[in-house]
Amino acid sequence: MTTVRQPLDPEADPRVKAVFDDIRATRKTDFVNNLWRTLAFDPTLLENTWAEVKGLMAVPTQLDPLVKEMLYVAVSIANGCGYCVHSHTAAARAKGMTDAQHAELLAIVSLAGKTNHLATGLQVPIDLVFDAGASN
Amino acid sequence: MTTVRQPLDPEADPRVKAVFDDIRATRKTDFVNNLWRTLAFDPTLLENTWAEVKGLMAVPTQLDPLVKEMLYVAVSIANGCGYCVHSHTAAARAKGMTDAQHAELLAIVSLAGKTNHLATGLQVPIDLVFDAGASN
Amino acid sequence: MTTVRQPLDPEADPRVKAVFDDIRATRKTDFVNNLWRTLAFDPTLLENTWAEVKGLMAVPTQLDPLVKEMLYVAVSIANGCGYCVHSHTAAARAKGMTDAQHAELLAIVSLAGKTNHLATGLQVPIDLVFDAGASN
Amino acid sequence: MTTVRQPLDPEADPRVKAVFDDIRATRKTDFVNNLWRTLAFDPTLLENTWAEVKGLMAVPTQLDPLVKEMLYVAVSIANGCGYCVHSHTAAARAKGMTDAQHAELLAIVSLAGKTNHLATGLQVPIDLVFDAGASN
Amino acid sequence: MTTVRQPLDPEADPRVKAVFDDIRATRKTDFVNNLWRTLAFDPTLLENTWAEVKGLMAVPTQLDPLVKEMLYVAVSIANGCGYCVHSHTAAARAKGMTDAQHAELLAIVSLAGKTNHLATGLQVPIDLVFDAGASN
Amino acid sequence: MTTVRQPLDPEADPRVKAVFDDIRATRKTDFVNNLWRTLAFDPTLLENTWAEVKGLMAVPTQLDPLVKEMLYVAVSIANGCGYCVHSHTAAARAKGMTDAQHAELLAIVSLAGKTNHLATGLQVPIDLVFDAGASN
Repeated sequence: MTTVRQPLDPEADPRVKAVFDDIRATRKTDFVNNLWRTLAFDPTLLENTWAEVKGLMAVPTQLDPLVKEMLYVAVSIANGCGYCVHSHTAAARAKGMTDAQHAELLAIVSLAGKTNHLATGLQVPIDLVFDAGASN
Repeated sequence: MTTVRQPLDPEADPRVKAVFDDIRATRKTDFVNNLWRTLAFDPTLLENTWAEVKGLMAVPTQLDPLVKEMLYVAVSIANGCGYCVHSHTAAARAKGMTDAQHAELLAIVSLAGKTNHLATGLQVPIDLVFDAGASN
Repeated sequence: MTTVRQPLDPEADPRVKAVFDDIRATRKTDFVNNLWRTLAFDPTLLENTWAEVKGLMAVPTQLDPLVKEMLYVAVSIANGCGYCVHSHTAAARAKGMTDAQHAELLAIVSLAGKTNHLATGLQVPIDLVFDAGASN
Repeated sequence: MTTVRQPLDPEADPRVKAVFDDIRATRKTDFVNNLWRTLAFDPTLLENTWAEVKGLMAVPTQLDPLVKEMLYVAVSIANGCGYCVHSHTAAARAKGMTDAQHAELLAIVSLAGKTNHLATGLQVPIDLVFDAGASN
Repeated sequence: MTTVRQPLDPEADPRVKAVFDDIRATRKTDFVNNLWRTLAFDPTLLENTWAEVKGLMAVPTQLDPLVKEMLYVAVSIANGCGYCVHSHTAAARAKGMTDAQHAELLAIVSLAGKTNHLATGLQVPIDLVFDAGASN
Repeated sequence: MTTVRQPLDPEADPRVKAVFDDIRATRKTDFVNNLWRTLAFDPTLLENTWAEVKGLMAVPTQLDPLVKEMLYVAVSIANGCGYCVHSHTAAARAKGMTDAQHAELLAIVSLAGKTNHLATGLQVPIDLVFDAGASN
């Protein structure tokens, strides 16, 4: 059940094929997951989304690759995106996340969810010392 | 503006004083931020919350202390908790987060926010290979 | 899997039948979708909900019917309501939304999701000129 | 800072005055809070919103008045609506909520926030016995 | 489909068995639902989560047991956690929630959802009288 | 109060100046709002974000410019981003949104918020006819 028609043969479109080829080459796998297959209904949206994800998640940057995937999982949980939780947990595991690290990730995310609700329920005023601009 | 009455002299209550003392000792600072000062309206809630936060965030665990704070920031942003975004960004910075790391954290969180919306809008079906239980 | 018991023969209740008849007449179709069939467990909640949806979405108002459906889809995505994303995307398509418009809708919703996370992460102060009340 | 212009003298409009008079009479107070003063920019939206809130929250129904306010607070916290958290916490207190009940409300809401994140992070499959429809 | 491997025979681990036994004894049922079966992948996370849920939801406290479950349902709906909506609605029903109470719960939660969006869209300033701290 | 240090003289950096100049030229105004002034702490994040917003919101596309701003407002409300609600409501007004259109926008967004909560609370199963892929 999707809200758009997935093309039956998406790679018949050369723009789609180019993106799928790059996904396979970048990730060193034959598998192209459903997000990209579904985005293939609009080649421009597919190209832009892949370019952005690749540029941040699939190349060396400031942060460690596994840390980046765990951050992605954390946001996806808080936003309640089931598909994204699955795909980025799988990616984190592929990058070496152990069961113990996974359990701790879930413990932190759920504790943050808890204190987020607490601070919002209390309407805690922001401490002036937290203002990064103040030290300017 | 809070939804509860902050005690004027919270440390007059020995249970509150014990928690505040532990916060100061654990964090090696005289500063006790407003979340704890506000929670002081109910010593039990204060004790339980601090015990849980301390046990996960203030002691050595699987994950690096800075990574833990960045995960906390990520969830707090997705949940829209302004107080929590401020307090945990300050904590991350105190643990060494550079401006470049902060910028990358924000780039990942906002990209995740973007693709979360995209996957939800498309109602992408979950790939069977993502099922961790399947490999059991 | 629902959290309430859908009546086996909901239209045996004349109040439910009256709402279902109005849905069919208003939408010029025999199809009554699951939201209404599930709400039939409580005729008052069914009547009130349909009256409100009909009064805003099924009659001519300030905004174009297709625009109204796209706004409904946008909110439903941000709130992570899979059922609502499906039903209102189908309604938008029935009102003429093309694939290109759908792709642009998703691009805007996901970009808004992205900059929402960014502004929250930065805790950007609101510019005084944005205050509509100020020009009063 | 609001996104609409609050009328300087809202009660100059007889439709607004009628709603404000009903709010004062229903709540037995001279105070009309900012939500209604802001909604006064559009008398129809004001009338509809007040009629709905009054019909559910200000008249005797199945649930206890204080329970209804606590449910409203719970949803408002989870949705991150600071204004609503404040106004409905004040209403709950006016209906007799004690500090101990408030603390327990916050404990439940934040624990629910925690296990919501946990279940979403684990992507727990729904137990078949939870299907209310199944027992039909 | 879960993001972790559920142990095939979770009670082979004595720590898991102890928690499951306590769940069965506390709830007076042989049934252990999937949240706990899934959490069994990490005995510490399982123990901590059950201890917290039991301590607040399964023992007498300030609030009525049914009210506590309805608050849990309310938060779970607002957070979009399908699993939690199902499990806590079933729990509320087991504690005596009638169809009429369920309908009213849904009416309040959805009305709160509505006015939360309205107050956020209007950016209503918080009335000074709502400040609980002010009366200190 | 921001979480990053806004540069005192952001346009001393030629990359920041180039973006600010383009914002002013594109919008035909001298005013550069705080989102961009805050993003100036990281020129790359500033450049990427502006390029993306400009490419979708400031050039002619499939959808009407006012409709695009209203969609942005809708998502920002649902995500609870106060800054974004303010900035995009101001932008919609600059593009001609009347008070009556604004009131209807808020009515739709809040009704969607309401039925989103209702559908999630009921856990309504998705009607098979909504599957766009089925008609492939």
